Amino acid sequence: MLTKNQIKLIHSLKQKKYRISHKMFVVEGVKVVGEFLNSKYELLEIFSYDKIYKKYDSNFTEVSSKELSKISNFTTANKVLAIFKIPSSLPVDWTGLVLVLDSINDPGNLGAIIRLCDWFGIDDLVCNETTVDCYNSKVVQSSMGSHTRVNISYLKLESVLAGFKPCYGAFMEGNSVYEQNLPEKGVIILGNEANGISKEIKALVDTRLSIPRFGVNKKTESLNVANAAAIILSEFKRSSTEK
Amino acid sequence: MLTKNQIKLIHSLKQKKYRISHKMFVVEGVKVVGEFLNSKYELLEIFSYDKIYKKYDSNFTEVSSKELSKISNFTTANKVLAIFKIPSSLPVDWTGLVLVLDSINDPGNLGAIIRLCDWFGIDDLVCNETTVDCYNSKVVQSSMGSHTRVNISYLKLESVLAGFKPCYGAFMEGNSVYEQNLPEKGVIILGNEANGISKEIKALVDTRLSIPRFGVNKKTESLNVANAAAIILSEFKRSSTEK
Repeated sequence: MLTKNQIKLIHSLKQKKYRISHKMFVVEGVKVVGEFLNSKYELLEIFSYDKIYKKYDSNFTEVSSKELSKISNFTTANKVLAIFKIPSSLPVDWTGLVLVLDSINDPGNLGAIIRLCDWFGIDDLVCNETTVDCYNSKVVQSSMGSHTRVNISYLKLESVLAGFKPCYGAFMEGNSVYEQNLPEKGVIILGNEANGISKEIKALVDTRLSIPRFGVNKKTESLNVANAAAIILSEFKRSSTEK
Repeated sequence: MLTKNQIKLIHSLKQKKYRISHKMFVVEGVKVVGEFLNSKYELLEIFSYDKIYKKYDSNFTEVSSKELSKISNFTTANKVLAIFKIPSSLPVDWTGLVLVLDSINDPGNLGAIIRLCDWFGIDDLVCNETTVDCYNSKVVQSSMGSHTRVNISYLKLESVLAGFKPCYGAFMEGNSVYEQNLPEKGVIILGNEANGISKEIKALVDTRLSIPRFGVNKKTESLNVANAAAIILSEFKRSSTEK
């Protein structure tokens, strides 16, 4: 049985300010909840009608499927919903390849980028504070559990990047990413969906990278930022395997 | 002023069966409507409160912003909504590089893939009939107008692909896409988000391609299909520029 307070808490976690003040976030669905359960994330509460989750003992609340629908962010609730503790970020390992996001707005894009970091073995993802919150439920669901294997930090980019080399940025006009000698270590910056990398951060980039366009009339305005991330990370990793 | 029949028609076009029977689809927003207006697509009706669209004469219906919200698929309607005619697909040019989709379900993924075809100059996108309809409004909006530069056909894959060479498919396990000699011409098949390429189509693939995973523990289950498309198309085009 759900208590009124539990319902109230879960609904409040849709808002960033409550996620921050409570240091909690919501995860849903068997697969994604499973990824978080098998990670270092601390489970606070778990709600399901499936008795398999009874092993979580005092953290477990048995709910009816009707109750689950009430607290779910999904149109069709998927068996289980859990609340985990938001951990502190670990210090960024700047000696590796670090992906930096400057004001990514769309939760689906951030989720896809976290999944890409996981795939390409990028341990650190650094976002500025105007990038969408990585514990937003759409981000959590679209990252498919990759949060558990990528260290995500929200930092003031101007200060951490000042003087950092090599510092690559993705631009509409720049050096073809296919023709660059890409290093195994460094920083890659991706900018906002509509406006790209901001003026302040642009000034810190040494090498502007772009993905060549092949269409005959070349009218396509831009690639989606997660697709651009996919291609650029693939190029960095491919070229490091060829060395 | 909107008539009841117009409202009824626009709402009916949310469903594939009515789009097919009427041969019509809906486009929204200044940017995307603009792309379709500047293309070979035939405009049937256009609704806006902005008098700039008055030049479309008998096709134009002036509506209040309140009326526009009523017919919009968006949470916040964006100035203009138009109905265009669904054209017949052109014959597929099998002598080029053709992207083939086997049961892609998610409209956002299909939209992103159409945009990628446009970017990479892939003229033909061939889908099987269980792939989501490309005139679904979410597909139209997420492709950002790239529909106007990519010929999309829905065909029975088993018959059109039988005996076709070279025929590449994207798999979780296969030859590294970085280490293949990729041709300028041929077919690339991407499969369903959850199940990959179906058994029948698998049998037609000569070369299985995969995108190497770089994470240390390699637990990431898969890449999003649009991101996989981005990387694979990028590799085909990159390797053709190097020849």
